[in-house]
Amino acid sequence: MPSALPHSRQIRLASLLVLVALPLTLSGQDSIEAKFRGSIDTANIRESMRRLSARPHHVGSPYDKDNAEWMLARFREWGWDAQIESFDVLFPTPKDRLVEMVAPKRFRAALFEPPVAGDITSTQTDEQLATYNAYSKDGDVTAPLVYVNYGRVEDYEELARRGISVQGAIAIVRYGSMWRGNKAKFAAEHGAVGCLIYSDPKDDGYGDAAVFPAGPMRNKDGVQRGSVMDMLQYPGDPLTPGVGAVPGAKRLAVADAPTITKIPVLPISYGDAQPLLEAMTGPIAPENWRGGLPITYHLGKGPAQVHLKVTANWETKPLYDVIAKIQGSTYPDEWVIRGNHHDAWVNGASDPISGMAPELEEARAFGELLKTGWRPKRTIVYAAWDGEEPALLGSTEWVEQHESDLKTKAVVYINSDGNERGFLSAEGSHTLEHFVNGVAKDIPDPESGVSVWKRLQARRILNGSPESRAEARTRPDLRLGAMGSGSDYSPFIQHAGTPSLALSYGGEDEDGIYHSVYDDFYHYTHFKDTDFAYGRALAQTMGTAVIRLADADLLPFEFTNLSDTVTRYTTELQTLLRQRQDTIRDQNRAIDEKLYDVVRDPKKTAVPPEKKEVPPALNFAPLVNATAALTEAANRYHRAADAATARLASSPEIVKAVNARLMQSERELTDQGGLPGRPWYRHLLYAPGVETGYGAKTMPGAREGIEQGRYAEAEHEIARIAEALQREVRLVDAAAGELERLGK
Amino acid sequence: MPSALPHSRQIRLASLLVLVALPLTLSGQDSIEAKFRGSIDTANIRESMRRLSARPHHVGSPYDKDNAEWMLARFREWGWDAQIESFDVLFPTPKDRLVEMVAPKRFRAALFEPPVAGDITSTQTDEQLATYNAYSKDGDVTAPLVYVNYGRVEDYEELARRGISVQGAIAIVRYGSMWRGNKAKFAAEHGAVGCLIYSDPKDDGYGDAAVFPAGPMRNKDGVQRGSVMDMLQYPGDPLTPGVGAVPGAKRLAVADAPTITKIPVLPISYGDAQPLLEAMTGPIAPENWRGGLPITYHLGKGPAQVHLKVTANWETKPLYDVIAKIQGSTYPDEWVIRGNHHDAWVNGASDPISGMAPELEEARAFGELLKTGWRPKRTIVYAAWDGEEPALLGSTEWVEQHESDLKTKAVVYINSDGNERGFLSAEGSHTLEHFVNGVAKDIPDPESGVSVWKRLQARRILNGSPESRAEARTRPDLRLGAMGSGSDYSPFIQHAGTPSLALSYGGEDEDGIYHSVYDDFYHYTHFKDTDFAYGRALAQTMGTAVIRLADADLLPFEFTNLSDTVTRYTTELQTLLRQRQDTIRDQNRAIDEKLYDVVRDPKKTAVPPEKKEVPPALNFAPLVNATAALTEAANRYHRAADAATARLASSPEIVKAVNARLMQSERELTDQGGLPGRPWYRHLLYAPGVETGYGAKTMPGAREGIEQGRYAEAEHEIARIAEALQREVRLVDAAAGELERLGK
Repeated sequence: MPSALPHSRQIRLASLLVLVALPLTLSGQDSIEAKFRGSIDTANIRESMRRLSARPHHVGSPYDKDNAEWMLARFREWGWDAQIESFDVLFPTPKDRLVEMVAPKRFRAALFEPPVAGDITSTQTDEQLATYNAYSKDGDVTAPLVYVNYGRVEDYEELARRGISVQGAIAIVRYGSMWRGNKAKFAAEHGAVGCLIYSDPKDDGYGDAAVFPAGPMRNKDGVQRGSVMDMLQYPGDPLTPGVGAVPGAKRLAVADAPTITKIPVLPISYGDAQPLLEAMTGPIAPENWRGGLPITYHLGKGPAQVHLKVTANWETKPLYDVIAKIQGSTYPDEWVIRGNHHDAWVNGASDPISGMAPELEEARAFGELLKTGWRPKRTIVYAAWDGEEPALLGSTEWVEQHESDLKTKAVVYINSDGNERGFLSAEGSHTLEHFVNGVAKDIPDPESGVSVWKRLQARRILNGSPESRAEARTRPDLRLGAMGSGSDYSPFIQHAGTPSLALSYGGEDEDGIYHSVYDDFYHYTHFKDTDFAYGRALAQTMGTAVIRLADADLLPFEFTNLSDTVTRYTTELQTLLRQRQDTIRDQNRAIDEKLYDVVRDPKKTAVPPEKKEVPPALNFAPLVNATAALTEAANRYHRAADAATARLASSPEIVKAVNARLMQSERELTDQGGLPGRPWYRHLLYAPGVETGYGAKTMPGAREGIEQGRYAEAEHEIARIAEALQREVRLVDAAAGELERLGK
Repeated sequence: MPSALPHSRQIRLASLLVLVALPLTLSGQDSIEAKFRGSIDTANIRESMRRLSARPHHVGSPYDKDNAEWMLARFREWGWDAQIESFDVLFPTPKDRLVEMVAPKRFRAALFEPPVAGDITSTQTDEQLATYNAYSKDGDVTAPLVYVNYGRVEDYEELARRGISVQGAIAIVRYGSMWRGNKAKFAAEHGAVGCLIYSDPKDDGYGDAAVFPAGPMRNKDGVQRGSVMDMLQYPGDPLTPGVGAVPGAKRLAVADAPTITKIPVLPISYGDAQPLLEAMTGPIAPENWRGGLPITYHLGKGPAQVHLKVTANWETKPLYDVIAKIQGSTYPDEWVIRGNHHDAWVNGASDPISGMAPELEEARAFGELLKTGWRPKRTIVYAAWDGEEPALLGSTEWVEQHESDLKTKAVVYINSDGNERGFLSAEGSHTLEHFVNGVAKDIPDPESGVSVWKRLQARRILNGSPESRAEARTRPDLRLGAMGSGSDYSPFIQHAGTPSLALSYGGEDEDGIYHSVYDDFYHYTHFKDTDFAYGRALAQTMGTAVIRLADADLLPFEFTNLSDTVTRYTTELQTLLRQRQDTIRDQNRAIDEKLYDVVRDPKKTAVPPEKKEVPPALNFAPLVNATAALTEAANRYHRAADAATARLASSPEIVKAVNARLMQSERELTDQGGLPGRPWYRHLLYAPGVETGYGAKTMPGAREGIEQGRYAEAEHEIARIAEALQREVRLVDAAAGELERLGK
């Protein structure tokens, strides 16, 4: 299906774009940015995607290395100081894979994605990595099935209320809603002996559109590969936690690696899942557990017995991170870093090349600027990470290896990981919220003719709660999302405390080829950003951000948005505690009054919930005080920075000193002790949730303490967060004090 | 599947039941009630169901008449003064039925529900009424399909925003969410030339449980018959609006009957629907429009062309209402009426016999009481209505025929229309809210051992919003639902102004046999209230209510619950207006700012909404004042009735006078002019919504005026409602004044 955008409209938009990108009067800096944005060429993005996705290029594959070397050559050709940095990591690849139903009838799962007509790369079966979940433990089990929906904590609670346990069973889980590693982990924690993860057609199959190749969605054979490592302990090489996986690094034995699953796990298609689910009996799945297959979803356990066998080649493989630099003219030891990964599960046109190809085009455009004599004031570092798919391997090992450099030199890390048509999606450090809004206001949207900021604002005004809609109209900056995990920004923000951003476009295309062989050039150029207009928009957004950060006199960090955000988080925590108190109190009373027994249907099993401890009141005072102090300090800094704007050139030493403080502002929000139970994660404001995996938890130590009923820990964490905020207050106050000298 | 309730538990519950039903000390009235409840026998209910559902018994069928005559004989045998009252009504039966896809490929719908093994009545194909929608216009059309979801007003708005129109098309609609007559009506109003209504498996098919006969749900051949008359104008015989369809009644010509559809309509199974839906193209249906078939739901129009032919035998058929009375000893001209219909679409074990069979058992139990010498003070009228399914024919014609009697004699009408396992469901006049709560507190629940009131309260405490949960704990009476339509109470409450109640049990059984041949004795006794324990509970509930009403000295009407309810409705209307003002103002601004253009995906058609008039402020003062006055009067009556309790026997004339007023209290809330555009509906507080069909709209003139943008009308209706409430205030004040004389 070719783009539905008529050619005439494309031309009109292109002209508009030039108008927006090249206003008549330009300052020097604006002119650099405009030149940069004007030189981004969609044909180059398309050609990079074609080249990089032409063959399977997973970690350890020939084409993975070939791509790295090709990119290295391009960076050098464009004038960058580039090299490949290598690490040796544990990366298991599939050996034996068997899913066979042995009762009530026999059925053997195909575990294979066949080539489809018209799509040439889908025929590269020799080089494709078979469908599997990386870092699954080896195993060979035969057991009945239990359907556990998305396999979340609340899903197991729901099962328990129906008297169903996965003890001794194979959990059959559907993909979606949560990091897949947690599906395997929670299944094991509840006693399952194996885990099958399948793609339900309701989630990314025929529900949303026709299936591939007729349409973009997952067909009955499509399988989502993916890592099932317990990355909530730590990402990266399982054998070298906290340090770079370089020669001589201390390595754990595979058997001792804590992030490998405790049970065998395998992903399957819905074509393979349907006979298994159909053979199940037991209670009927709750309404919101039911998928899109034309069957009655049962919970089990029943007669359906499955033999699951999984073994891997447990080998060490090399990673090839491509690291390219343009040395800063004024502040060479201040790094603006931007990255995207280059490895894929198979051909990976969408994931990751739709983000990698724009990055390369940015690099080429920087090369063009270099030819005109321009030099950034700060050093620009462009990274093409290897091994993101298995476990954020390339970025994590690099961050762990270069941690001391990053602590002193990193200004910002900016990540992408794929791109589609639609709306700007932005997550990151709230000290950069105002900055990102500024960038977005200067990027023309390819489809609407307004800026990408205006378009995003329009969407937020039209959707959401009345409060957030009203806010989208009146708040000068659109809110930035908090960072969870799932891509290469994670080690930067959460381990090293580097201020970070993750940017992409999306929201208009549906697809169901994630981590399958069908995520390829044919699919992308038929169903997604087919003319690469949003690939260009991403490159323009990233490049504009990098130029502004690299050339800013005073780094564009802003603390009023941080204090506003932190105030919201504080209020949320208090509300969460109150709601939890009310809910538990209510539920305990209902249990005492036997209301659950009274309402239960005797034809169905229903186990009343168990009484829980009512959360005590917690001391939020330190956090409330720290938040108030941060608001004061942020306002002071804001006034001082405003007043100093015109005088920055007069005292470069002061500016440099202020910048040095600003570069430490994110690190003040971290703590070397890390979060409770997961010391690798050091940021006290943002983390992936232990129970969600991808999804962010803000003020995670306190929030998860409350959510999971560890109230003393929560109170302790509230105090730690308050201390971090007080450190931030001192930093901001000191920076403001210095700027005030300048402003006088 | 036999009942999962173990035998031992059944016995234990049965003993409990006796304990609850027969407390040790009984007053005379309590003793009557206890005798009544104790004599209800599930074996009789089961046998009545078997007999009444043994053959198809739709209007005009031999077994419909046979059932009526059998019931007549039973009532007489039990000592009732019974007769059959007959009416002659227009009842079309199917002649030609054709649904054939003619492009892109040919497919002819089966339109047939085959017999299934084990279910003997499903083999009675000769007597079964073929699958059809009664009161569909004849027609023969060929046109493309457009999928319109549930076919509601908002669904057509959604289609319009996607640039899709049903003009000239056949609308394919799924059953559910709304009265089916409105599906046909709205399709025609939007320009469709035909309408197919199908049962999606997500709504009552394999999603919820296995399909019949393996389970209770609708199988691929199951079809929901049903009327598509425009009952929102008026129910009953289309040719005799407002008057009984007796010999000599003025009759419209069929061609002039306004309640017959404007386009041909036919219901189909999902087996027949799937090939049609699969052949459609066009935009993809929004997420909440998608059903449970394993296909991508498209909106059309596309290549799928369907030939639809429908003709009926437009014949007049006789109705046989069975009307049985026990003459009141003291107040023979005060009638307590209770009814259920006896006609079905086919065998109708669940609908209606699961309500009719308990009614017969009540009648038998009253016969037992009569033998002991008991006589009710008031006249008890038991009705078995014919022709409910096509259009509430039997009840409506009877109410229209006896309207003048009802105006002076009717105390209360109590309806049922089927019964299942579960929780008490109660709707009705809020003057009876306290009364119904009292009855429910004395009925033992068959499954939990507590009263049905306690069990319902437990459910409301465990579910719903925090406010309604807290209220369920603290408010002395559980709230009664308002009456919409869909059963025989409609002419009583909404046309004649008779205080009414509709009671049943349900909520624990799933089924998908509504209006199909599979709604039969086999299905009911395998999948629903298999031991008729809830059939007994319904008979006990109804009988207790009837005895209390028939024997009460002072009729148990209560106005504080009415004033509380009316106060809520008033607040709701004000909130509705405010929200509508905000929403329209917001939307108009977004249209002016072209936000819809900015966010639209150029690859999809998206038509911005049109600007609407912002609702003006309306004068709620008369309503607020009337509500306040009603609250005062209700409190006064409450105090007076309390004080008078012990002295009622001293002044029977005063009590009789107060009762005469109370009997008029519901009629004060009606207006002979009826509601805007539908004069047959005269109640100013309760009506089925013009756009919902079944669902109740409270203060309907005002509410629908606001919802549909007729603000002057809404303000006029607010004043009319206020006047009705002021009439009620005068009545309640007068009744209180009389009681105060008694209380002194």
